Amino acid sequence: MPVLTITQAEHVVAAALERANTSPENAARVARALVSAEADGLKGHGLSRVPTYAAQARAGKVDGRATPTATRPRPGVLAVDAAHGFAYPALAIVADELPEIARAQGVAAAAIRRSHHCGAAGHPVEALAEAGLVALLFANTPAAIAPWGGRLPVFGTNPIAFACPVPGRAPIVVDLSLSKVARGNILAAKQKGEPIPEGWALDADGNPTTDAEAALKGTMLPLGDAKGTALALMVELLAAGITGANYAAEASSFLDAEGPPPGTGQLILALDPLALGGEAALMRVSALAAMMEGQEGARLPGVRRLALRETARREGLSVAEATLAAIAAL
Amino acid sequence: MPVLTITQAEHVVAAALERANTSPENAARVARALVSAEADGLKGHGLSRVPTYAAQARAGKVDGRATPTATRPRPGVLAVDAAHGFAYPALAIVADELPEIARAQGVAAAAIRRSHHCGAAGHPVEALAEAGLVALLFANTPAAIAPWGGRLPVFGTNPIAFACPVPGRAPIVVDLSLSKVARGNILAAKQKGEPIPEGWALDADGNPTTDAEAALKGTMLPLGDAKGTALALMVELLAAGITGANYAAEASSFLDAEGPPPGTGQLILALDPLALGGEAALMRVSALAAMMEGQEGARLPGVRRLALRETARREGLSVAEATLAAIAAL
Repeated sequence: MPVLTITQAEHVVAAALERANTSPENAARVARALVSAEADGLKGHGLSRVPTYAAQARAGKVDGRATPTATRPRPGVLAVDAAHGFAYPALAIVADELPEIARAQGVAAAAIRRSHHCGAAGHPVEALAEAGLVALLFANTPAAIAPWGGRLPVFGTNPIAFACPVPGRAPIVVDLSLSKVARGNILAAKQKGEPIPEGWALDADGNPTTDAEAALKGTMLPLGDAKGTALALMVELLAAGITGANYAAEASSFLDAEGPPPGTGQLILALDPLALGGEAALMRVSALAAMMEGQEGARLPGVRRLALRETARREGLSVAEATLAAIAAL
Repeated sequence: MPVLTITQAEHVVAAALERANTSPENAARVARALVSAEADGLKGHGLSRVPTYAAQARAGKVDGRATPTATRPRPGVLAVDAAHGFAYPALAIVADELPEIARAQGVAAAAIRRSHHCGAAGHPVEALAEAGLVALLFANTPAAIAPWGGRLPVFGTNPIAFACPVPGRAPIVVDLSLSKVARGNILAAKQKGEPIPEGWALDADGNPTTDAEAALKGTMLPLGDAKGTALALMVELLAAGITGANYAAEASSFLDAEGPPPGTGQLILALDPLALGGEAALMRVSALAAMMEGQEGARLPGVRRLALRETARREGLSVAEATLAAIAAL
């Protein structure tokens, strides 16, 4: 497989997006986000997205030339209109402006509306943790999960991400979606003609299924049964209900160039640990990390991701020939 | 079974706590919280707690005469010291003071340290939603869940609660703990001499077990496998790490009168939906509720709880003779 440096990969992606009606500034931000996800081993949010992003920018489903704008309706709130552009330029405003607000107010919220796929949800909170803040992100995504007991999808797979600074080392980062497994696992089973395990999905009538094709026409099951659906409802209300974004069931796909812009939302909360727990707060975080790492077989979440990132920085990114060719052909 | 009105039940509980070295004001707050949980059908947080609460107040493990105090280290933060008293007087300060802060700042955080069992986690957020706010609560509890891959408990069952106002009707309330099932289910199986299903718990060596007795010596499994453990870590850091409270693994039991005070923590976040999404935000919540309720078999979380509450208000609370006798004997 061809190996690219991080910088080379960013240039290749940015150039492809610029050819697809995206401004150089936005293309650079999107490229950095996708290459960062790829480097972390989060391939579903990495270079595989370039062709669909480019197709959406060409079709106007995402406005590659949009400039997000922000207002401060209250001292602790940053309201960001992503203007149906990519999410990453809107997230960059949050990364730039939320730390100062959170430090002054003790807690701050950024509400992003008219947004798009937010990519690796751990990255925006990790950036805030690197600025010394404890951060939460809630994002909604196109509909995939039914209300518990129902059969029509109303909630997205709705990621929750969290990050917390740890003195002297990388932040603790939690990043999880609320479906039991990613939809890609069902697509892969279908391509291989294999059944899927029970508990992954329901068919279009709301019945459990092990048939990958029936599952793709139905809904994804959440982690933790009814509790997971309740969390998906919570994220839907936080990320879309109160930000003014589209709900999952109103959002068009992130994966094709059909229809209007998805218009989904993200809510980011940032807390200053020094305001809440005083000077001792961050040392306490180290203490919890030690309790976890002191146990054989246990580790902090994100350790594998950081190791992959380090390897990519040192040795470059291996990218499949077909992926590079598809990007070059855009 | 004897039937008591809500007011009678509150008087019985408050009187028992006053006899157990608790101030009349604190006893009234604790009684209201326990009776509210009982009325909602949340018996694990209801009258069953009175004997252990009273024993802890007598032993000084909880300070029944404590007066919680609050400071405002930043404009958006209320830092509450529960002073090793019951959690409910501290939560009452949050209910009184957080709405005004959240409306002025757009978002507000209350950090409670040196706290105790917070009871039905949905109730404090429901109260904030009745004041027009969207609210989140994270609480840590004594250690029950191991880090993923480990065998020693580091995290509590760590409830997450969420509430959101809905125009013209009761708020949507989500209230869930992060263990797959409540520990009470394992205790019940042990008493009946029955095995427990796989997936509920691990034994003391970190291996899956269906033996109830081995499970009680081991750890509880989280909902959603590794993702649930990641959420439990997140709650531990939010509720204890950054509030200055004790971690789960440092906290004594909520269920006996042995040892020092538990000293756990709670973090409550309140957002003003009008600041985030403008005037339309709350009508959008109604729209999501309609999408869920329009499906056969689906319902909003908390519907059963509200129906039970209504019945208890109208017809009174049926309380087991033995429970009443135990409370009267305190």
